[in-house]
Amino acid sequence: MNLAEEMEQLARRSREASHALAQLATAEKNAALLAMADALEAGIEPLQAANREDLQVGESLGLTKAMMDRLALDPKRIRAMAQGLRDVAALPDPVGRILDDRTRPNGLRLQKITVPLGVIVIIYESRPNVTADAASLCLKSGNATILRGGKEALNSNRWIARTMVEAGRRTLGERFPDAAIQVVPTPDRAAIPALLSLTQYVDLCMPRGGEGLIRAVTEASKVPVIKHFKGVCHIYVHAGADLNMAIEILDNAKTQRPSTCNAAETVLVDRDVADVFLPKMAARLASKNVELRADPAALALLSDPAVAYPASLVPATDSDYDNEYNDYILNVRVVEDLPHAMAHIRRHGSAHSDAIVTGDAQVARRFLAEVDSAAVYWNVSTRFTDGGEFGMGAEIGISTDKLHARGPMGLEELCSYKWIGVGTGQVRA
Amino acid sequence: MNLAEEMEQLARRSREASHALAQLATAEKNAALLAMADALEAGIEPLQAANREDLQVGESLGLTKAMMDRLALDPKRIRAMAQGLRDVAALPDPVGRILDDRTRPNGLRLQKITVPLGVIVIIYESRPNVTADAASLCLKSGNATILRGGKEALNSNRWIARTMVEAGRRTLGERFPDAAIQVVPTPDRAAIPALLSLTQYVDLCMPRGGEGLIRAVTEASKVPVIKHFKGVCHIYVHAGADLNMAIEILDNAKTQRPSTCNAAETVLVDRDVADVFLPKMAARLASKNVELRADPAALALLSDPAVAYPASLVPATDSDYDNEYNDYILNVRVVEDLPHAMAHIRRHGSAHSDAIVTGDAQVARRFLAEVDSAAVYWNVSTRFTDGGEFGMGAEIGISTDKLHARGPMGLEELCSYKWIGVGTGQVRA
Repeated sequence: MNLAEEMEQLARRSREASHALAQLATAEKNAALLAMADALEAGIEPLQAANREDLQVGESLGLTKAMMDRLALDPKRIRAMAQGLRDVAALPDPVGRILDDRTRPNGLRLQKITVPLGVIVIIYESRPNVTADAASLCLKSGNATILRGGKEALNSNRWIARTMVEAGRRTLGERFPDAAIQVVPTPDRAAIPALLSLTQYVDLCMPRGGEGLIRAVTEASKVPVIKHFKGVCHIYVHAGADLNMAIEILDNAKTQRPSTCNAAETVLVDRDVADVFLPKMAARLASKNVELRADPAALALLSDPAVAYPASLVPATDSDYDNEYNDYILNVRVVEDLPHAMAHIRRHGSAHSDAIVTGDAQVARRFLAEVDSAAVYWNVSTRFTDGGEFGMGAEIGISTDKLHARGPMGLEELCSYKWIGVGTGQVRA
Repeated sequence: MNLAEEMEQLARRSREASHALAQLATAEKNAALLAMADALEAGIEPLQAANREDLQVGESLGLTKAMMDRLALDPKRIRAMAQGLRDVAALPDPVGRILDDRTRPNGLRLQKITVPLGVIVIIYESRPNVTADAASLCLKSGNATILRGGKEALNSNRWIARTMVEAGRRTLGERFPDAAIQVVPTPDRAAIPALLSLTQYVDLCMPRGGEGLIRAVTEASKVPVIKHFKGVCHIYVHAGADLNMAIEILDNAKTQRPSTCNAAETVLVDRDVADVFLPKMAARLASKNVELRADPAALALLSDPAVAYPASLVPATDSDYDNEYNDYILNVRVVEDLPHAMAHIRRHGSAHSDAIVTGDAQVARRFLAEVDSAAVYWNVSTRFTDGGEFGMGAEIGISTDKLHARGPMGLEELCSYKWIGVGTGQVRA
């Protein structure tokens, strides 16, 4: 069997499994998830053994220390994975919700009801905990999952998926399909385009990782992809802002966790308040050793001997404004007014999360209406764009696309719907 | 300027127009639509002149009589187009609906609010009335439209789009962008892949037409496509059916308008009632001269001298079950029971519209739950799958996809959403 045939068989099995999964009752899915959590906790030793093989692979591949750390599973991380499954079991079932219910003049009753999407491919990088996390969300929403993690995590990922499926079988017997959760069994990179050409079996692909991975997947895929290229988020400090609030929001958005996609990369400051705001900001960010990349106006103010920004301060290049640093680096730009700030965001933003700080409600309303991002904020840190913070309970990713789902994606976003029409012999005139 | 550059300029202008369109108030959009309707009616003569040029092109291309008829615009059709615009003006604005409104424990208020998708490309075949129809639905939902009709309709399409834009400008002045409605100005086929590679400017492509067109567009596109490959719809006559009701539903689903995608192509009949149902069905369908393609069991019953089906009766081949005939042809198959009927639909159906006729509620509920089609019906003709019949007021197409929209797509389905977060200085802990 060649690779294309192998992928076709894999995907066809997922498609068949998806029909069975779509019919599981909420209690069945939850029982399976709880059994899976127990099985992961009971398997700490063999899972760590599988993970040690991966760590050896990782070492031979010359992974960085940070990547090795993401790859490693210790008992604490395994228990956290198990707890994640229990948390998903506790969430409401997204399948079978009635989105619409209408009776037409002819007596035909139409209900729009949520159903699983079907087969979801998740492509991700090192961290093996994504395996349990993504598979549990897909299972709770009645979908079959095909997982493709990093090649250095293959042993851990296969162990996790097999253990989850075995626990599902023990709990539900034949009603739980073997192919509910599958890991692509080969590290061959050609498996991805082969899998993502199978539009008859795969309903959605969600790549999770760096921009390069996501662009490659999108380019290769014939099946629909929901993605999140990058998070270039802005804090716009309007002339009418409470500047102390602006400092707190900017500090939080930049430094609370710089590696996240909802961290801020650029602050835009109205010219009218730049000479007051920037020295205050500099004092705060210097204490966190944030590098500032400034436009000429900001550079002049920040270079003033009275400020003398003690950390790195360099001129911003135009391409800096397009960067997701994921680091303690911040672009600083002085703008004339709201339209200039919005023009900057339109040109350089990634349509992820952007915030305005102002006391002027009219200006804020215009910003919220015209900035076309997944999340737009007024007097709030951009760091809140997150399924947990939004009250979704869990998150499979954040979409910067506009079709199907935008912003944090929880269980509801893993569903489609169908129309159910019930009548008494109605025919069309 | 080469073709790729020309398409990029076109799409970039649409993107810019989309920002302006997204900010139009409901009253502005409606005023523009009503002015456009008046302008179309006032332009019957010049539009017919443009259309006559197209008819000459069509003749030189050797179009069939049916295609020439679809291409031709007479005063009645032009008035119907204008009325269509007035109908769209009367529909509720799908933009700005609040889908969710939640206040988090930290006081952050989150609203999920509908916004336009942005730039929509519509690719379609001959009929020039689609130009006004699609553009008006996109405009009402705040989207910029790029239209690509058949090359034989180019003059009519350009006249319609130009007239609509001019009416919009007269009504709203600079607030109505020139590029709100654009027609691809070249009949060059290479324009389609060039346009559909511009993911930075185009949000959605909707092809409307035959399966060949749709497959070609899907294959070529890098932007998301919502499509409808074909409508292979089933009527399943269960043993517990009221057979007179089944006859009425089947007759309607097959013969009321066979050219539509929601017409039935196959009837599945439970073995227990086949010997009673098929002769009744034959009597009804013979009067409409429907060709029957029957499996061996049905063929035997229908060939019985007591029935002697007077119209064409031939054995069905396996590939017949995959066909969308759009004609007075019906596949007839005898099945053992519900699971066999559902297995047939899963294998041969197109996930469009499928109906069961039965008096048994338990059987019906299982059919409605397990058949994974955009619309599933109990004791109703499949012909109801239609935006108008569903009460959506208008329809841009019917999706057999599962992402974003499924089944009839009206104005609401032409929207995305965004999250608006309003706070008082909240930061993430």
